[in-house]
Amino acid sequence: MLENLKEEVLKANLELPKKKLITYTWGNVSGIDREKGLVVIKPSGVEYSNMTVEDMVVVDLEGNIVDGKLRPSSDTPTHLVLYKEFEELGGIVHTHSSWATIWAQIGKSIPSCGTTHADYFYGSIPCTRKMTREEICNEYEKETGNVIIEEFMGRNPIHCPGIIVNDHGPFTWGKDANEAVHNAVVLEEVAKMAYYTELMSPDNIMDKVLMNKHFSRKHGKNAYYGQK
Amino acid sequence: MLENLKEEVLKANLELPKKKLITYTWGNVSGIDREKGLVVIKPSGVEYSNMTVEDMVVVDLEGNIVDGKLRPSSDTPTHLVLYKEFEELGGIVHTHSSWATIWAQIGKSIPSCGTTHADYFYGSIPCTRKMTREEICNEYEKETGNVIIEEFMGRNPIHCPGIIVNDHGPFTWGKDANEAVHNAVVLEEVAKMAYYTELMSPDNIMDKVLMNKHFSRKHGKNAYYGQK
Amino acid sequence: MLENLKEEVLKANLELPKKKLITYTWGNVSGIDREKGLVVIKPSGVEYSNMTVEDMVVVDLEGNIVDGKLRPSSDTPTHLVLYKEFEELGGIVHTHSSWATIWAQIGKSIPSCGTTHADYFYGSIPCTRKMTREEICNEYEKETGNVIIEEFMGRNPIHCPGIIVNDHGPFTWGKDANEAVHNAVVLEEVAKMAYYTELMSPDNIMDKVLMNKHFSRKHGKNAYYGQK
Amino acid sequence: MLENLKEEVLKANLELPKKKLITYTWGNVSGIDREKGLVVIKPSGVEYSNMTVEDMVVVDLEGNIVDGKLRPSSDTPTHLVLYKEFEELGGIVHTHSSWATIWAQIGKSIPSCGTTHADYFYGSIPCTRKMTREEICNEYEKETGNVIIEEFMGRNPIHCPGIIVNDHGPFTWGKDANEAVHNAVVLEEVAKMAYYTELMSPDNIMDKVLMNKHFSRKHGKNAYYGQK
Repeated sequence: MLENLKEEVLKANLELPKKKLITYTWGNVSGIDREKGLVVIKPSGVEYSNMTVEDMVVVDLEGNIVDGKLRPSSDTPTHLVLYKEFEELGGIVHTHSSWATIWAQIGKSIPSCGTTHADYFYGSIPCTRKMTREEICNEYEKETGNVIIEEFMGRNPIHCPGIIVNDHGPFTWGKDANEAVHNAVVLEEVAKMAYYTELMSPDNIMDKVLMNKHFSRKHGKNAYYGQK
Repeated sequence: MLENLKEEVLKANLELPKKKLITYTWGNVSGIDREKGLVVIKPSGVEYSNMTVEDMVVVDLEGNIVDGKLRPSSDTPTHLVLYKEFEELGGIVHTHSSWATIWAQIGKSIPSCGTTHADYFYGSIPCTRKMTREEICNEYEKETGNVIIEEFMGRNPIHCPGIIVNDHGPFTWGKDANEAVHNAVVLEEVAKMAYYTELMSPDNIMDKVLMNKHFSRKHGKNAYYGQK
Repeated sequence: MLENLKEEVLKANLELPKKKLITYTWGNVSGIDREKGLVVIKPSGVEYSNMTVEDMVVVDLEGNIVDGKLRPSSDTPTHLVLYKEFEELGGIVHTHSSWATIWAQIGKSIPSCGTTHADYFYGSIPCTRKMTREEICNEYEKETGNVIIEEFMGRNPIHCPGIIVNDHGPFTWGKDANEAVHNAVVLEEVAKMAYYTELMSPDNIMDKVLMNKHFSRKHGKNAYYGQK
Repeated sequence: MLENLKEEVLKANLELPKKKLITYTWGNVSGIDREKGLVVIKPSGVEYSNMTVEDMVVVDLEGNIVDGKLRPSSDTPTHLVLYKEFEELGGIVHTHSSWATIWAQIGKSIPSCGTTHADYFYGSIPCTRKMTREEICNEYEKETGNVIIEEFMGRNPIHCPGIIVNDHGPFTWGKDANEAVHNAVVLEEVAKMAYYTELMSPDNIMDKVLMNKHFSRKHGKNAYYGQK
C-alpha cells in the first residue's frame, strides 16, 4: 500500500540525520497522497538507524491508522491540521535543529537578513504566539497546527515554506517530503546566519527591493535560476 | 566476572568519542549490578581507541578493586557516592563536553528554555555550589558526589537525570550505562541551545504549563511518546 | 573544447562542498582562458554530487554560450564583468559560506585582526555599498560586478583577493580556479575569527607594521614563505 | 639521519589536520634530539597530504640546514630560540587554530575558568605583548621567540605548556613532539570554552584551591590520575 510514497518518506526521514538536523529520534517527516487522502509518516520514537519501509505508518486525514504495525509520530495531529488547511503541501518536516530551535526559544521571528533567506523565504520566518493553557492541556498537537495556521492568516505558505513554534522548534514543508527536508536544511542555515547578524547588529533587515529581486529569481513565472 | 556489564560499560564508554562528548581521555562511564553491589567503571587515563573489555575495572561500593588489573577512574568515589544515595541509578557518566562545561564555568544552572529540555529534564539543570577548601583538600572526589546530593535534596534525580558541577563539568545518569550516555548527549545539546538563547534574550524561561505537558508526554503513567 | 580548463573548473567546483563552503547548489566557480577570451563556468542550479565535465558551460566575455547543453550560472554576468576589469584574474568563486555571509548581512568590511588575515589579504576585506533600486531591477548580476569594481577603485585586486557583497555573500579570485577556491576557504576562516574578535573586543585592528611584515613574507619579490 | 625523530615529527605534523587545528599549511611541529643538538622540523608551505619522512628538515640550533632538500618552516628561528632557552622542551607546535587565534587577536591571556584548564595549564595562558617596529622589521621570527621568553620570566614553561602570540596565534610544547600536539589540542578546547564563559560572564576566574587541586592530580610527585 502506497509503497512509493512510503519509500519517499523513509528516504526523506533518513536525510535528517545525514544533514545533522536531528539528535536521536527528534524529528519526523510525512508525505501525502492527495488523491487517496492518505498520509505516510514516521513511527513514534524509533531510531533512524534501523528504520525500514515497513515501519512507515499510513493514516487518513482524521488520524485513523490505515496501514502499519507501529504507532505514528506523536506530532501526527499537527501534520494533519496543516495538510487539511494548506492544500498546496505535499510533505511536512518537524525537527529540533539547533539554530531554528534557539530562535523558537527566544520567541522571535527570524528576520530576512540577506539573499540566502530571500531565495527561499519571502519576508521573515514567523514565530507562533505562545499557546494558552487550554490549548496545551487539551488537544495539544492539533492546537500546535492551529496556531501555525493562525500565524499564516492571509499569507501564502508556499512563499514562506516554514515556521518556528514558540518555545518548541521548526516545521517546514514543500511540494513533497524531499522538498520539505530541503527547506528544513535551508531554514537551519538561515537561522544560524540571522542569529549572528542580529547579535552583532540588532534589527538589521535587508533591502526590500533586493528581497523581491531574489525571491522572484527563483519563484514565479519570471524565475530564471536553474535549468528550465 | 560480570562480563555482560563490562561489555555494556565498555560500549557506553566508546559512545562518548563517537558523539563528540570528549577530548582524549576526559570522561568515564560506569554501570552497577545492584544485586551484587558491584560497579564496573573505565580505567583512569586510558585511550578510548584501544580500550577492551579486560580493561574495565570492578569495584565494590566502598571502592575496593574486586576485578581488573588497572586503576579505576580517579572519579570513582563520585560515582560510588551517587550509587549509594540514589538507588534508582543503573549507570553514570562524567564528561567535559563543551557546552555543559561552559555553563559549569559560568557557574549557573541551565534554564529550561524549550520543549527539547522539558522532554528530558524537569526544570532547570542545577549547578552545584562552589566547594569549600576543606572539601577540595580532603576527599575531593567523594565530596564532589556529596555536593551533587546536597543540590538534589528533595528533588527526584530521575526527573532531572543530570547536573553540572561548578567550575568543572557535567554528570548524567540513567537506568543503565547506555541511558546515562543518551542523557549526556541531550544535556550537551540543551546546554548549547540554552546558551545562545540566554545570550540573546537573558532570563528567558519557558512556559510552565508547556513544560509540564512535554515532560509528561515522555514520563509517567500517561506518557504517549514512542512505542508501547 | 577547453577540456583541461573544464576539468580544472569542475574540480574546483567540487572542492566547495568538500571544504563545507556551500549548501546544496549555492555557489559557483569559473576559470578563464585569456588567449581565447573564453570562460568556463558551472551550470545553474545543478547538484554537485552528479556534476561532470560535460555539464560545464563555455561562454565568451559577452555571455554568449559557446559550448555546453546547460544554462550557465545565473551569476555569470558578475564573473564576466570582473574578468573584463581585472586582467590578472584567472578564476573566480562565489559562495554563501556562513561567516563571510554573516559579515555581508551585517554590511561591514572584515577588519584585519591578525596575521592569518595579513598573510592573504592586505588591509580589510571590503563590503560593497548597498545597490540602488535601478541596479537591482535592471541588469542585477552585471551591476553586482560593477559595485565590486567601484569598491576596488585604486586598489589592487591581487593584494586583496576577495570581497563581500552587501546583504549577499563573498566573491574571491586568484590566478586560476584552484587558487580562487583556496582564497574562499581562507576568507571564510578569517571572517569567523574576525567575528568573534569583534564581538568580544570591538574595533580591534592589528598593528600596521605587523600587517606589512606578514603580507610581504608571502607576497612580492622579498617573499620567503614556502619553497622557491 | 635521525630517522626515528623524523618519523615522530612527521606523525605529529599529520596529527594537526586530523585534529582540525589547521587550514592548508598553517602550522608546524618540530622535535629535538638534545644529545646531538639537532632539530627536525616541517618544511615551509608544503601540503600535509603528501608529506613524507624525506621532506622533514634537520637544522642545528643556529639554524643551519644539516639534512633535507627543502627549506625549513619560516618559523624555525622561533622554535630554536625556545629550545635554547627552555631545556625541558622536546617538541614544539605552532598553529593558527581558531579559538586560540581569536584570543591572540583580542590580545588577552586566556583565564583559567575551570578544571579542564587546570588539569593542564597552571594559571592563565599568557598572551605576549605587542612587538615593536624594530622587532618586527629585523629578525622577526627570532624576536617572536624572545617575546615568548620575556613573558615566561620566572615562570615554569612546563607548568604552562603554551602561550599565544599577540595578533598571531598559539605555540605549545611538551616533552616530545607528540605531547606538544596533545597540548595544542587541549589549548584550543580550553580557549573555546573560556571565550564563551568570558562572553556571558566577564572576569570569571576559577577558585584557586580547586585549581591547585586539579593541577596536582595530574602533575608532580603526588599525582594520582592515570596508570602508574
